[in-house]
Amino acid sequence: MRTSIATVCLSGSLEEKMSACARAGFDGIEVFEPDLVASDLTPEEIRARAERLGLSLDLYQPFRDFEGVTEELLEANLRRAEARFRVMNRLGIDTILVCSNVATATIDSDEVSAAQLRRLGDLAADYGVRVAFEALAWGRYVNDYRRAWRIVQLADHPHIGTCLDSFHILSRGHDPAGIEEIDGEKIFFLQLADAPELSMDVLSWSRHHRLFPGEGEFDLAAFLAHVLRTGYDGAVSLEVFNDTFRQTASGTTAVQAHRSLYTLADETARRFLDAAPSSSVAPVQAPAGIDFVEVQAEDTRDVEEALEQLGFVFRGQHRTKPVRLWSAGGARIVLNEQYARGDEPHLSGLGLLYADVERAERRISDLDVPRMPRPMQAGEQRLPAFATPHGPQLFLASAPANGAEPGWVGEFEHGYAPDAPSHLGAFDHVNLVSSWETHDETVHFYGSVLGFEKGSVNQVASPHGLVRSRVLRTHDGTVRLPFNVLPAVHEEKTEHVALVSDNVMAVAHQARNRGMRFLPVPANYYDDVRARFDLDDRYVDLLRSHQVLYDRDEFGEFLHFYTRRIGGVFFEVVQRIGGYDGYGADNAPVRLAAQSRLDGARRQG
Amino acid sequence: MRTSIATVCLSGSLEEKMSACARAGFDGIEVFEPDLVASDLTPEEIRARAERLGLSLDLYQPFRDFEGVTEELLEANLRRAEARFRVMNRLGIDTILVCSNVATATIDSDEVSAAQLRRLGDLAADYGVRVAFEALAWGRYVNDYRRAWRIVQLADHPHIGTCLDSFHILSRGHDPAGIEEIDGEKIFFLQLADAPELSMDVLSWSRHHRLFPGEGEFDLAAFLAHVLRTGYDGAVSLEVFNDTFRQTASGTTAVQAHRSLYTLADETARRFLDAAPSSSVAPVQAPAGIDFVEVQAEDTRDVEEALEQLGFVFRGQHRTKPVRLWSAGGARIVLNEQYARGDEPHLSGLGLLYADVERAERRISDLDVPRMPRPMQAGEQRLPAFATPHGPQLFLASAPANGAEPGWVGEFEHGYAPDAPSHLGAFDHVNLVSSWETHDETVHFYGSVLGFEKGSVNQVASPHGLVRSRVLRTHDGTVRLPFNVLPAVHEEKTEHVALVSDNVMAVAHQARNRGMRFLPVPANYYDDVRARFDLDDRYVDLLRSHQVLYDRDEFGEFLHFYTRRIGGVFFEVVQRIGGYDGYGADNAPVRLAAQSRLDGARRQG
Repeated sequence: MRTSIATVCLSGSLEEKMSACARAGFDGIEVFEPDLVASDLTPEEIRARAERLGLSLDLYQPFRDFEGVTEELLEANLRRAEARFRVMNRLGIDTILVCSNVATATIDSDEVSAAQLRRLGDLAADYGVRVAFEALAWGRYVNDYRRAWRIVQLADHPHIGTCLDSFHILSRGHDPAGIEEIDGEKIFFLQLADAPELSMDVLSWSRHHRLFPGEGEFDLAAFLAHVLRTGYDGAVSLEVFNDTFRQTASGTTAVQAHRSLYTLADETARRFLDAAPSSSVAPVQAPAGIDFVEVQAEDTRDVEEALEQLGFVFRGQHRTKPVRLWSAGGARIVLNEQYARGDEPHLSGLGLLYADVERAERRISDLDVPRMPRPMQAGEQRLPAFATPHGPQLFLASAPANGAEPGWVGEFEHGYAPDAPSHLGAFDHVNLVSSWETHDETVHFYGSVLGFEKGSVNQVASPHGLVRSRVLRTHDGTVRLPFNVLPAVHEEKTEHVALVSDNVMAVAHQARNRGMRFLPVPANYYDDVRARFDLDDRYVDLLRSHQVLYDRDEFGEFLHFYTRRIGGVFFEVVQRIGGYDGYGADNAPVRLAAQSRLDGARRQG
Repeated sequence: MRTSIATVCLSGSLEEKMSACARAGFDGIEVFEPDLVASDLTPEEIRARAERLGLSLDLYQPFRDFEGVTEELLEANLRRAEARFRVMNRLGIDTILVCSNVATATIDSDEVSAAQLRRLGDLAADYGVRVAFEALAWGRYVNDYRRAWRIVQLADHPHIGTCLDSFHILSRGHDPAGIEEIDGEKIFFLQLADAPELSMDVLSWSRHHRLFPGEGEFDLAAFLAHVLRTGYDGAVSLEVFNDTFRQTASGTTAVQAHRSLYTLADETARRFLDAAPSSSVAPVQAPAGIDFVEVQAEDTRDVEEALEQLGFVFRGQHRTKPVRLWSAGGARIVLNEQYARGDEPHLSGLGLLYADVERAERRISDLDVPRMPRPMQAGEQRLPAFATPHGPQLFLASAPANGAEPGWVGEFEHGYAPDAPSHLGAFDHVNLVSSWETHDETVHFYGSVLGFEKGSVNQVASPHGLVRSRVLRTHDGTVRLPFNVLPAVHEEKTEHVALVSDNVMAVAHQARNRGMRFLPVPANYYDDVRARFDLDDRYVDLLRSHQVLYDRDEFGEFLHFYTRRIGGVFFEVVQRIGGYDGYGADNAPVRLAAQSRLDGARRQG
């Protein structure tokens, strides 16, 4: 599969964009006219540079407002087009994108548009150029790919074909299955963009909210399968612009873009065997569980104190590193004081268990996710480590049979044996944070690279703005990672680890006896809970005395409590009763306000 | 007019919000239930604190999903309500907002909803509480204020009235004139919010894009007039939330909010005399012109060199300050080296001319815009100075008769007399920058405080993201201030001063002879201009040889060139031919790319 990307997707000068695309592994680019106009390189210099970088120049775009016009305007449009054909010849580009007329069309007729395109085709032929006609979603008369294709058929000219853009088709809700009725030889170009589900006018949606494949909600694998079934074998190109990544370094965006095409090809091959594009990526595999969470700090004592109060057991210190392991039930937490000078406690690593760890490693590596080096001594188990878009490292470990502990646990010495059965079971979820700049890439990473399911977007009110959140989880719910998106204004990054319990009251009671200071929950909260859920007074008193929060939905109940924040982490213990599958989102503002109060108190003294 | 504001509008804890509202001059607040629930103050403590601050607690809100339900659910809802009434008694709040049912309504009947509200009224009477029933724009069955009013009429209960919210009414496009058919005594509460014109689903629009009156596009003065004509004399309250100012310090937001109510009252009084609310604010007055622009830097020599090359005349140094004046035609530029240690050149002040400067000063001062102190010596003219939301100071000066220079010019000594007529006339526009956090307040400042007209929002592509821009101008076009909104990612703030010319080629020619280094315009730009506008080669060569840019629309032509950036400012010379009224927006990306290239070259050495 030949990969291409429009220069409008990236930030910086045209030279910077070309270098970034080549480095990321793209085969070609679409030249966005304003990038050319603003460049001080001549067309000949651009062509030479592309050759040197090994990039083909696949498309010149866009040419606007051509068809459906009066004869006088048509003459002017042909002159405009001819000037572009000359530039294309200098660039060595053989295909131009002509978008359906938005502004100047006055004649709503397939025949007239076809005849006008035919004249454009004759002119294009003189310059050896092909015209790819595309229906914009907001075209004045032509805003449906099926109509654009009808016009191309009527034009019946070897230099006139169509261009398909997933955004323009799927944003209008048009059925992409009709693509299969198009002659693949007449599809002169293919552009892909994903998008979030939003209900807004398509023009704003397109300008500000396009995403790379796998970051949004469109089924692009199905879309691509329809296109490939026509026999189309041209470039698969990305045309994506939004408010975030035009501000991001072009190199980062290009790598992210290229990876999204590979995961898309992979998904298409997996789901639509009859239309499989070439893909050498190892197949996706959901993790079997969370192996461990790593917390790093110059001094991890406060975290260890909290773990002990919660009922965790000290399992020992690592043979060769200042790293300690604690566990409770199946939850393992690694405390790492190495390379952490001056750091407050923060979540630095997440280990996932895999049935076939080699295959998982190969896939992540095939998709150009950067590896992280880990010093390792003889006899220690190798855990492949990768960078994540949102910060902590990702480790892969082999899932042992029947719930045994993984081999690397044996590298920790001088600790206690795992305790007798306690009220703490395993990780319920790990609540992570991504910045707004990295959030879309994070969604793609867990969704398309690692095969998690993407939940819907929620909003939680904090004292300092709305916090967007989205849960990424495995289909079976074994691994759940709710992500919060930090508001643009800088707030401290706080992440937390939630542990599942079969008796949250008992855990809270024991923790209090061991000296734990809980996150204080205001009395008003319990008045509200009583009123909201019609609970009896004695039960509410019990919740209050343990500082336990409550939620309920049609499926069941949810009890949970929080420790205070220790640097950038805290812990939560949760109990799910019945089929409750949420995270107590209604209680999050109460937690955030309480944490904010403690911060204020700390600042004041 | 009693002013009030919902605590949801502000960031921080409930205590912080209450203090900010009191300081800003609000008479009362609406208590947003989640703020109460998350607070560790008891209801009695909140009540006592409000009394001490002189704030009335006007409304408890919101109570959701009450009416149109089954009998069983109604019983539960009444219990829920009673728990709130008890809390309200403890708080001393006598009115509760009940929003039309979104989630649980199953009975679409005015009679049933009225009967259920009547039962709520009976219960409310026991607690001395009034219920204000409001139609949410996205209510399941009740989403029109006229229907909510019909139900209230049917309920016919002294403790049941309606609440009007401008957002819910105007976002649906419902005609607010019908408000005048409501009995003013039955309007139990009034909430105001403005909003930008967006086409998206109303719920997202409401959650993320509400604005304070005067910041958006709703005609809230007309809306308020309708309400006041009913005889309504309760609080006028703000319920506004968006993604920006929940992240802003509560004190700043509260002052901005309070000012927006005063300008609204003022506008209502001015436009709708029959429904005039009490307003003691001096009436609005458009400025008669730009008096001067001030540029501040530790060293202003590079700016002065550019001014000389453009044809400005040195008018002298100030008698008592290290401040120099240059002028050309009616354009005066003040160079200020005072208090500028380490500063690069930047736009630090804007002087406006007024026919009645005392009245202008009184208005701005009445609206709590902070004054800026200016050291002044005997015999010097006093120019009142104010802070603007976007940075530079605003100065007010008296407009002299028949285009003479204002009196303060006489304080500058040892310069030249103004030149013989040159090709530079006056300021065409001053292009300013506001951050995204301050942009809405800036729009309000120029629009509602100073009486400028608000243009539509445009987008310009820069190498590092889309730049939103909006022109604020006087009705007659004498003062034009295009504002760019900085993207969230930090870029250097660059502002520029555009001077009008009757012969831009002559000015460019002369400037080049005096050694000016223009902003270099790439050759590709001229190829594109020739093709786009069908210009002849000789004319394009002329443009290119002067590095002059070109634009054309249906009304006329626009010629302009730019100087290079000097610190955070640069200059533009523009010539308008025919009725062209724009700013050459299509050329802005070319300018931004050229500036970015020069920055890159400078960084590389």
